[in-house]
Amino acid sequence: MHKPLSDLDSQEILVATLLHLDSAVFGGETSSSRSVTKAFVDAWREQNPGGIVIHRDLDANPVPHISAEAYMAGVLPPEQRSETQAINHAAREEIIAELESADAVVVGAPMYNYGIPSTLKTWLDNVILAGRTYSTTESKIAGTPVTVVASRGGSYAPGTPNEPHEYVTNYLASVLGSLLGMNPSFIVVDLTLAAVVPGLSHLIPLAEQSRSEAFERARIAGAELSRRLAA
Amino acid sequence: MHKPLSDLDSQEILVATLLHLDSAVFGGETSSSRSVTKAFVDAWREQNPGGIVIHRDLDANPVPHISAEAYMAGVLPPEQRSETQAINHAAREEIIAELESADAVVVGAPMYNYGIPSTLKTWLDNVILAGRTYSTTESKIAGTPVTVVASRGGSYAPGTPNEPHEYVTNYLASVLGSLLGMNPSFIVVDLTLAAVVPGLSHLIPLAEQSRSEAFERARIAGAELSRRLAA
Repeated sequence: MHKPLSDLDSQEILVATLLHLDSAVFGGETSSSRSVTKAFVDAWREQNPGGIVIHRDLDANPVPHISAEAYMAGVLPPEQRSETQAINHAAREEIIAELESADAVVVGAPMYNYGIPSTLKTWLDNVILAGRTYSTTESKIAGTPVTVVASRGGSYAPGTPNEPHEYVTNYLASVLGSLLGMNPSFIVVDLTLAAVVPGLSHLIPLAEQSRSEAFERARIAGAELSRRLAA
Repeated sequence: MHKPLSDLDSQEILVATLLHLDSAVFGGETSSSRSVTKAFVDAWREQNPGGIVIHRDLDANPVPHISAEAYMAGVLPPEQRSETQAINHAAREEIIAELESADAVVVGAPMYNYGIPSTLKTWLDNVILAGRTYSTTESKIAGTPVTVVASRGGSYAPGTPNEPHEYVTNYLASVLGSLLGMNPSFIVVDLTLAAVVPGLSHLIPLAEQSRSEAFERARIAGAELSRRLAA
């Protein structure tokens, strides 16, 4: 949420917070999703040099799989939690509070085996908590804009043979949008394997077009959101 | 694969192997998916007392998230793998070999947040390997029957409001069936929360019907597969 930099200033300066999640197993420029989330973040920072960017790398530092203890702690009032449950919940609480602190979120979501990375599902299972992040009128994340950068080796666009096997943008629209009530938008990077797999080389021009459009959209979205939230 | 118990017997006895995967965070009878996979396994054993059942509990003992090193090892020939890659691949090799050893598989797949548990996605990311378990005519798992027990708190049946948010049976049909070429079938346990959530109590009769049908189908499927494979 917006934080006043100083209550003493006659003109209050508001600082926007961006949560930047990556989940690709490959690092740096070899990852399309990481490259495009970085372009988003760079554009955000440029418009909002005093803003806060929290980077959580779910591949380098995965959060724990949800456990029975963490789940039970989430449905019990604090005073009824066992010691183990309380410990499990503390880790979860930190992850949820970080999301709640964000004015906007950008998520790198490469497709692995038709779905999201296991580390991203693990994060989602931690932050999705009834009475806190959904099924409540008090949710602090309802309406938060979340930009998903969905990269994939092939094409899953409407009309392609792989279309029925697309479980990244469809799934994230369901959980981030319908379940959590956030405000998701999607930037897709198609055909990232075209330059690597010999049989796909005829698709290189399409892949390059998809990639450059994704970078352009990420830069525009990062700058626009940053201007709007820091205003 | 079928293993002769003794090559010396004039009448060879074949032993079938069942891989039994569970992924629910709750144990024992509090878990619908675990209760129904157990009914399947009990019926299997009854028909096939000398058979082998391998139980892998993905909640109690999660396999590692796929890493860049494990991924790279999977696409490189053994002699080109670094030491770290070789170590990462050894863990993956064990998980794949276990699946390859199975004549049939039964998977407990509860729905968490519209999707499969993160621990089950982690297992899938380990066993899905191009040139080994798909994209090869040599796959040892092509055609293997896999029975999925898909349990969920609500109903996602055709015509229900939640139908578009069903990413368990749809997703597993895509990866187990279309991608891996296994032979999947699905046993659904609907409305497991009906007896727990006060607002759903009117759905208890439907929930009980779904549960008893699931048990019945699991017992039949377990016995039938066992008889067929041990024949």
